[in-house]
Amino acid sequence: MNNILESINSPKDVKALEIDQLNQLAKELREYLIRVVSNTGGHLSSNLGVVELTLALHYCFNSPYDKLIWDVGHQTYIHKMITGRREEIKTIRKLNGLSGFPKRLESKHDIFETGHSSTSISAALGFVKAREIMHENNYIVPIIGDGSMTGGMAFEALNNAGRLDCNLIVILNDNQMSISRNVGGLSSYLDTIRTGTVYKEMKEEVEKALTKIPRIGKEVVKVIRDVKSSIKQLVIPGMLFEELGFTYLGPVDGHNISALIKTLNQAKRLNEPVLIHVNTTKGKGFKPAELNPTKYHGTKPFYIKNGKAKKAPCIDTYSKALGDTLIDLASNDNKLVAVSAAMPEGTGLDKFARKYPDRFVDVGIAEQHAVTFAAGLASSGMKPVVALYSSFLQRAYDQVLHDVCMQRLPVVFAIDRAGLVGEDGETHQGIFDISFLNHMPNMTIVAPKNKAELQSMVRYAVNFDDGPIAIRYPKGKASQELNEHNEEIVYGKSEIIKNGTKIAIIGVGTLTQTVIDAAKLLDNDGINPTIINARFIKPIDKSLIEEIAKSHDYIFTVEENVISGGYGNNIIRYITDIDVNTKVVCLGIKDDFVRHGTRNELIRLCELDEQSIYNNIISYING
Amino acid sequence: MNNILESINSPKDVKALEIDQLNQLAKELREYLIRVVSNTGGHLSSNLGVVELTLALHYCFNSPYDKLIWDVGHQTYIHKMITGRREEIKTIRKLNGLSGFPKRLESKHDIFETGHSSTSISAALGFVKAREIMHENNYIVPIIGDGSMTGGMAFEALNNAGRLDCNLIVILNDNQMSISRNVGGLSSYLDTIRTGTVYKEMKEEVEKALTKIPRIGKEVVKVIRDVKSSIKQLVIPGMLFEELGFTYLGPVDGHNISALIKTLNQAKRLNEPVLIHVNTTKGKGFKPAELNPTKYHGTKPFYIKNGKAKKAPCIDTYSKALGDTLIDLASNDNKLVAVSAAMPEGTGLDKFARKYPDRFVDVGIAEQHAVTFAAGLASSGMKPVVALYSSFLQRAYDQVLHDVCMQRLPVVFAIDRAGLVGEDGETHQGIFDISFLNHMPNMTIVAPKNKAELQSMVRYAVNFDDGPIAIRYPKGKASQELNEHNEEIVYGKSEIIKNGTKIAIIGVGTLTQTVIDAAKLLDNDGINPTIINARFIKPIDKSLIEEIAKSHDYIFTVEENVISGGYGNNIIRYITDIDVNTKVVCLGIKDDFVRHGTRNELIRLCELDEQSIYNNIISYING
Repeated sequence: MNNILESINSPKDVKALEIDQLNQLAKELREYLIRVVSNTGGHLSSNLGVVELTLALHYCFNSPYDKLIWDVGHQTYIHKMITGRREEIKTIRKLNGLSGFPKRLESKHDIFETGHSSTSISAALGFVKAREIMHENNYIVPIIGDGSMTGGMAFEALNNAGRLDCNLIVILNDNQMSISRNVGGLSSYLDTIRTGTVYKEMKEEVEKALTKIPRIGKEVVKVIRDVKSSIKQLVIPGMLFEELGFTYLGPVDGHNISALIKTLNQAKRLNEPVLIHVNTTKGKGFKPAELNPTKYHGTKPFYIKNGKAKKAPCIDTYSKALGDTLIDLASNDNKLVAVSAAMPEGTGLDKFARKYPDRFVDVGIAEQHAVTFAAGLASSGMKPVVALYSSFLQRAYDQVLHDVCMQRLPVVFAIDRAGLVGEDGETHQGIFDISFLNHMPNMTIVAPKNKAELQSMVRYAVNFDDGPIAIRYPKGKASQELNEHNEEIVYGKSEIIKNGTKIAIIGVGTLTQTVIDAAKLLDNDGINPTIINARFIKPIDKSLIEEIAKSHDYIFTVEENVISGGYGNNIIRYITDIDVNTKVVCLGIKDDFVRHGTRNELIRLCELDEQSIYNNIISYING
Repeated sequence: MNNILESINSPKDVKALEIDQLNQLAKELREYLIRVVSNTGGHLSSNLGVVELTLALHYCFNSPYDKLIWDVGHQTYIHKMITGRREEIKTIRKLNGLSGFPKRLESKHDIFETGHSSTSISAALGFVKAREIMHENNYIVPIIGDGSMTGGMAFEALNNAGRLDCNLIVILNDNQMSISRNVGGLSSYLDTIRTGTVYKEMKEEVEKALTKIPRIGKEVVKVIRDVKSSIKQLVIPGMLFEELGFTYLGPVDGHNISALIKTLNQAKRLNEPVLIHVNTTKGKGFKPAELNPTKYHGTKPFYIKNGKAKKAPCIDTYSKALGDTLIDLASNDNKLVAVSAAMPEGTGLDKFARKYPDRFVDVGIAEQHAVTFAAGLASSGMKPVVALYSSFLQRAYDQVLHDVCMQRLPVVFAIDRAGLVGEDGETHQGIFDISFLNHMPNMTIVAPKNKAELQSMVRYAVNFDDGPIAIRYPKGKASQELNEHNEEIVYGKSEIIKNGTKIAIIGVGTLTQTVIDAAKLLDNDGINPTIINARFIKPIDKSLIEEIAKSHDYIFTVEENVISGGYGNNIIRYITDIDVNTKVVCLGIKDDFVRHGTRNELIRLCELDEQSIYNNIISYING
């Protein structure tokens, strides 16, 4: 009986329901969500975890007048479904379909766009200040996971929020996870509150201690101190937040709608910053996801009956090649340390973590710390490899520049998901890393054309001791083509794939293969281009470029990165410097963000597929 | 009687002293420091605050085997003086002299370079991990101010440190200040511990409450909860840190060497992460600095007898012009909100803050939060102006790109200290902002040639509503030359200063004046260049550039930024795109960090003075 969900076209319809109807709606939403995501793929675990919370929020608040700000934003499927996008949700993450994240153009209920973690409280404080200036009296409610809470900027915001003398309701959605299991002091702390173990175990001890107080006097301080680790939780759960100026409410069962509503209403009455600690279960209501929330964090289409993927997942990825190579290297090099920021599985380091637990560190969602931590390791003679997604490395721009490059420390950056990532869209595209690393002094940047070259580059990088080196490689299956091109990696040297005439095409990284394919199309036009695999993005191979420039009319550079500040830019500048009269054309991503779609669709959209490259080359040489 | 200091050539000599000798040494160091800084200028207040702490640290620890890691690093003058650099300290911050920050090449006791805040605990954890892997047993001691503690990455590191099961000694140097007075929940929290007010006021109340407990039972929980805000501090000062997994020791009087030594030794015995809360007074021992620590944070040379500056400070700066213009605009625009990250004075916003306290927010050292907070403001229809130093904006790279540019929000970035900053050196040069903003979609970047143009640009930017706009301008005196060139600011349009022939020179920002001066030198060679003030760095003025390119043989671009990814790059790419046969030469900063010296010395070092520009132009056109 799916009839409540069908009648929900806006939050107003949610507000009209009774509690038992809300519970029924939660059930229906969950079933609908599982059905949709089993077809489309997408973020499942986190959305299953917030079904009741989303309903309670829309029940208690008046969106969009009240501001719901979803940290990270991949848990907004339910929010989308009850704000008029129930049917459209079936297009989620598809080209021209709904985004998997909040988008302002999609709905007036998506008031702030998120994607990277830990931004919601900062944004919320902006809304709070605006409310004050405009004399409004709406509620502002950032919803942030315990994983996102480990990102430093969330703390910066909490620290600023603590001094407010007006209402702000922070929802701490505690599911004990980021994508992987959470780590760190905050996590243990929340765990203590959540489980109440200290409370149970120590209550008796505290009581015993208190009965011993002979008379009330100075001794009370000492006695209480003696049992401090136990009394902490007894006295005030959530003291950490209280210390920063918040009123802490909770923990609340995040799957109990009445309890949630009661607590939210309580929070609305307070004229101060409030933190509501909500316990939720990632994957709630779908057994396979409850048992393995990481697997279903972002999932491909699957069969509902058993949770099995409809298509066998790609296991031979560049990420795995990184992990395997590092395992291999670590056996002979006890100074190799691998660092992840809450992504051991995504970056292919999970196996390394199991094999060398003492030389693997997952710092949580904390990219800034990850990089400077690696700088500390390198300063002590270690060989750190920091594996991050390109898009998340953006968070550590200053740390890479100021802590690593400035000290010329031998830190290896394994930049995964470089280039277009597909369905996650704008917020996750790895299309800026060449541009933001290129201008950093002392930095070396390389990109492999295939799996074997990634492995060679990782070996090269780990043994490279003249400063930092970044290896960028894309999402997905590692290519095993082009293995016949296996020249040794030499500092600053590109690799000639084929000698031709008149036009030269330089591919950066895995686009080398696409360039070869485009060249086959050119063959039909009687064009026989020289093909080069850049290998080194920084420094560029000046002697080869000069040689090529002198013997060719055109040089085309092809990179999966924005053109501005990219590889091609440096080629153009060099050609201009040396005053050779060849025409350089940079192919890459235009000066714009790239939305979501499959990786292949986006590659075509950005004209980085073989046909588009061919077309562009033809149109240039024909003027 | 200056005889102890004269005998201190290494930390070993400090260790050999008795307590009363250490106190005498502190006195001598302080006098020596005041004398040196009164001549050289530099960071005074923070160094005066850590005299005893530095001695106690070198007394208790064995540097460099034990690792002292100084957060921010400008408070290391005393450390430098007792690690063999007593004489050299007289050259501090001068070209070829000692750096004002720790530098690894300068001494084996400078083990990790700092400059930007909040990095020390992350780096320390790297040293801890290395210690574990190498089975060493040295001590690792990051020293971090309460100001730096508000930077998110410090929290990321604390969160990671909390789970250590080995010794790590974090020194919280609490002087209640960043450069300006500290803000936020953490600051209030530390204040509570520091002053002990809660303790004193509430102790009685707590005791009363406890006597009321009839029998020990469930009521104890309720009663204790009732007095929770008071009992907090009574039970455990430093609970916030304890919650994260640290053992909290303190607060300790940071000017009492015996107390410091006792606490440090206590911390050394613990096999866990320890945080020692040390209270220090910024400016300690020099009355003018104690009374106004912000003024003496970074000071010019001054007279010891009264603290007065030897040269009248420049008050007519670009920073002040920003502040004044915003005050003016705010009177007619109640949506204008100014945001600073712990730099109200430095960015010229102090007067604005006093005049419009409700529309000024100092978020503390928290650049990431500052930017996303501004994004929240802009999303609510406000007009935020975020004023940051170029070098510190690096911390918010991802927030500018992901939270502001992606949503095309009308946030104004007032980028102060863009270009070479002089005496602070590598860590503070603002020479990357053009490169890291240039490739951000939806971003507009402008730079004014003089004070009047800054004011026009600020007005333009505040009324610009098509996305973010960044205005970059340098440190120092605002130029009032060139006021005859006062065309209205038009989107994307450069300004022609002078029409000439054959060569065109485009100056970015205040280098326009230098270009004009260089052109005067060219005049003697019979060269009459066209001179252009870029105004818009992004987008470039394509139609003008095309026109110029077609009518000139050479275009020189001149910018106070690294060449890679800079303004000139975009000009070169455009010229290549439109296939015009003019030669573009980019003058700017080479691919390297720039050390310390006066701003003028560094401008010459980077060949951005008029003579160097002239020389370069001549050498290019003569082939």
